[in-house]
Amino acid sequence: MTKRARRRRKQPQVESAKVSQLPFKAVVNRFPPICAISDDEVEFIHQSSLTVLEQVGVEIMSPEGRKLLVENGATASTDGDVVYIERGLVEECLKTIRPSFSLHARNPVHNLEVGTDKVLFGTVGSAPHASDLDHGRRTGNLHDYQNFLRLTHQLNIVHFISGYPVEPVDVHASIRHLVCLRDCVVLSDKAFHAYSLGRQRNLDAIEIVKIARQMNDEQLLQQPSLITVINSNSPLRLDGNMVTGIIEMSRHNQIVILTPFTLSGAMAPVTLTGAVTQQNAEVLAGLTISQLTRPGAPFVYGGFTSNVDMRSGAPAFGTPEYMKAALISGQMARRYRLPFRSSNTNAANTVDAQSAYESVFSLWGAINGHSHIVLHAAGWMEGGLTASFEKFVMDADLLQMISEYLQPVPVNKDESAIEAMVQAGHGGHFFGTDHTQQRYRDAFYTPLLSDWRNYETWSDAGSPQTMEHANRLYKQLLAEYEPPPLDPAVREELDDFVDRRIGEGGVTTDF
Amino acid sequence: MTKRARRRRKQPQVESAKVSQLPFKAVVNRFPPICAISDDEVEFIHQSSLTVLEQVGVEIMSPEGRKLLVENGATASTDGDVVYIERGLVEECLKTIRPSFSLHARNPVHNLEVGTDKVLFGTVGSAPHASDLDHGRRTGNLHDYQNFLRLTHQLNIVHFISGYPVEPVDVHASIRHLVCLRDCVVLSDKAFHAYSLGRQRNLDAIEIVKIARQMNDEQLLQQPSLITVINSNSPLRLDGNMVTGIIEMSRHNQIVILTPFTLSGAMAPVTLTGAVTQQNAEVLAGLTISQLTRPGAPFVYGGFTSNVDMRSGAPAFGTPEYMKAALISGQMARRYRLPFRSSNTNAANTVDAQSAYESVFSLWGAINGHSHIVLHAAGWMEGGLTASFEKFVMDADLLQMISEYLQPVPVNKDESAIEAMVQAGHGGHFFGTDHTQQRYRDAFYTPLLSDWRNYETWSDAGSPQTMEHANRLYKQLLAEYEPPPLDPAVREELDDFVDRRIGEGGVTTDF
Repeated sequence: MTKRARRRRKQPQVESAKVSQLPFKAVVNRFPPICAISDDEVEFIHQSSLTVLEQVGVEIMSPEGRKLLVENGATASTDGDVVYIERGLVEECLKTIRPSFSLHARNPVHNLEVGTDKVLFGTVGSAPHASDLDHGRRTGNLHDYQNFLRLTHQLNIVHFISGYPVEPVDVHASIRHLVCLRDCVVLSDKAFHAYSLGRQRNLDAIEIVKIARQMNDEQLLQQPSLITVINSNSPLRLDGNMVTGIIEMSRHNQIVILTPFTLSGAMAPVTLTGAVTQQNAEVLAGLTISQLTRPGAPFVYGGFTSNVDMRSGAPAFGTPEYMKAALISGQMARRYRLPFRSSNTNAANTVDAQSAYESVFSLWGAINGHSHIVLHAAGWMEGGLTASFEKFVMDADLLQMISEYLQPVPVNKDESAIEAMVQAGHGGHFFGTDHTQQRYRDAFYTPLLSDWRNYETWSDAGSPQTMEHANRLYKQLLAEYEPPPLDPAVREELDDFVDRRIGEGGVTTDF
Repeated sequence: MTKRARRRRKQPQVESAKVSQLPFKAVVNRFPPICAISDDEVEFIHQSSLTVLEQVGVEIMSPEGRKLLVENGATASTDGDVVYIERGLVEECLKTIRPSFSLHARNPVHNLEVGTDKVLFGTVGSAPHASDLDHGRRTGNLHDYQNFLRLTHQLNIVHFISGYPVEPVDVHASIRHLVCLRDCVVLSDKAFHAYSLGRQRNLDAIEIVKIARQMNDEQLLQQPSLITVINSNSPLRLDGNMVTGIIEMSRHNQIVILTPFTLSGAMAPVTLTGAVTQQNAEVLAGLTISQLTRPGAPFVYGGFTSNVDMRSGAPAFGTPEYMKAALISGQMARRYRLPFRSSNTNAANTVDAQSAYESVFSLWGAINGHSHIVLHAAGWMEGGLTASFEKFVMDADLLQMISEYLQPVPVNKDESAIEAMVQAGHGGHFFGTDHTQQRYRDAFYTPLLSDWRNYETWSDAGSPQTMEHANRLYKQLLAEYEPPPLDPAVREELDDFVDRRIGEGGVTTDF
């Protein structure tokens, strides 16, 4: 019996058994992407977004960024920060992008390929609140932050850390990146993200990952080991930190995911075509800065276009519009041969049916749109305002199911099981057949959460809902957590650096 | 302002406003199907299933059915009901099938096309229990049955009645079909289903639909107006009622949906390929009986293959295996140019997150697999054991979202909204732009249920979950219900027939 088979036989209800899950592995999206618009329409959006860059321009709130663009042929406005980027310059920069690259983790087993046939799942990032069933919703804090990192390390289907799953507001912003990035290295050995909130924070992150992976500068340039998400300040604006982040991370050959915050009807046009046109223009502006900084720097097309509720202005997620935008964004990314990033989103306030259907619709768009990276894949609630422990493990179940959905189905004589049909007999049962007995342990996906007991048994057990199963599971995973091994010498070097920088006060803030 | 725009402006929370929903319309699945196996593998399964029919045979528990098959070249076993069907006979019958046909409703506005680019959504069928939040789970009864028909009539996205949404157990089985089919005609004007539970019930249903649509025999033959679902008694068995149903409905040119109950690991092999091979053999056996009865009789390939929980034997739905089986079943159906039927299933005991994610995964499989008919599309819970009023309206929301997801995205200069970007300005807001003002009312899908209020407002409102919103909505829909017009002369003729047949005792039963 294989190790996996042994795990599968255990009831997840039995507290003494370890949580059974799929092994860490690449999830290959073997299906073709679904296209929502024609190739001609893709080209139309491409050309329209170039027109936007040339004629409307992008506000670049960074002298360094404006200088870089103007030196390479863009035109600065005379009375402000707007830069008009000619289409020829963009087209030149599109020639140097790389369709795929690696993202290296402290544990090489957890290295990832970006932009191939794989789809990668990352944690929720940047939620200001955490929540669980026991203590409700609270302001983000270090304790919850660390527990999300532990869950990330525990759950194989969560491939990397997309940012701080929850913002530890109890750690001062001047040193938060130092504290948090050390935790990323110590509590997990998966790849992680660095926020672009000023050059010094980028440089601190680079130093930390160099220590964690014991790299010199040359190795860092060869092995992208950090991602940074750059959210343009839509419409058509990149603030100073964002521009600096693109430049600093590209200079070090680390991965930039440029994701415009194009909520249709609010920060982007009320039409999907308009919103994606603007998204595309903003992505291409960032791409131009990245490729001018370092041709070939790893760059990802981020698609986050959704809509707002036009009655209230509230952001909506996992909507039909969100799904269609994911399909079109994927098409635009493929037009450029860029890796494509999407998300697992919802706008629900609790882990109810709405949270589930909006999430699965988001994932449907992400998978049919052939995302290479799915951020916020586990734990996101409330339009990103809360990281939920229960949602985190429920999402892990959804992601595992998608991983299994994408597995090939072997078709051959043995799988046809005609002899088993003879053995079962007309109107008979297959459980006792040899064919079943040889395969039943590993035949089907075993969910983490789904309650398949009959109504009476379920009722007698107190009619638990998904939320309650998820609550139990996340606590079991934390109870089972063991930190990944870390060479004491590396740990010492890491502590020396982080403690010194904390002692220096980290990064100056104005509060 | 259009009527739709006026509806959209209303808050669904306002009780005095009518429920806002999409109009009744055909849902076109404009995306290509996703294929889980290669064409060669489709052919392999086809050939394997022919081998099953030839060598393992199908138990046909009907002398009439056996006679029909043997007269056309099949071989009966000497000591039982098993019939071995040669592949040549199946191939001949596959030549006479029709790739598409109409399903006629009492109201011609509700006529449906089966087997084109449209996807049709039907109600849950045959649940032995009903449930709602107010009164919990109870044995099916006529009151609940009628309310489900009223909801079906009210919700435009539910295109037809797939069977009794809940089984009215308080109506004796001898006359249940008469009472229930009259209700189908009176309480709704959408197309409906007739159970195949003996020849007399088929003939009563045919008489009722002839009265409802005021057809003579010739018109009935031209206009399929009933569907019947034939669940083969897997593995490889068709009982007497099922065979009679195929023959009687095909003879009258009404629609047969042959859906084997192939739960992998229980009534079908533990491998998906084996389960689909068996499913395919059973479909082809039914198809052969149908086409021998009447070449060209409307026939639908039903795919219901799922798996069981191998630890408990409990049926599982909306699983990765279910999704893959839907894709492969769609491929098999297209191999034969037959319309394909799938379902919206889940195994949850309440309308929690699990019920939602299993449902959306089912629909993902159904839509990516290019189903023409989705049965149990609204209201199914608990592996089909319960019809839930809340799930019914939540599913209507899911189906509306899918309908919107499948809508084309217009791409042109006006939709690009470059002028709106100029008007909004860098870092500005689009709400005030002319482009938005002209479009905002109809720009996005307005959900029936989703609660997009911010956390504080939602919390102040008592933290309602999807279940509670759905409870309010279904009751509002029932309150707004008005029966569709019915010519008094038709009503009288219908009552004459039904009352006479009830007076005769309906159909003899042994209880």
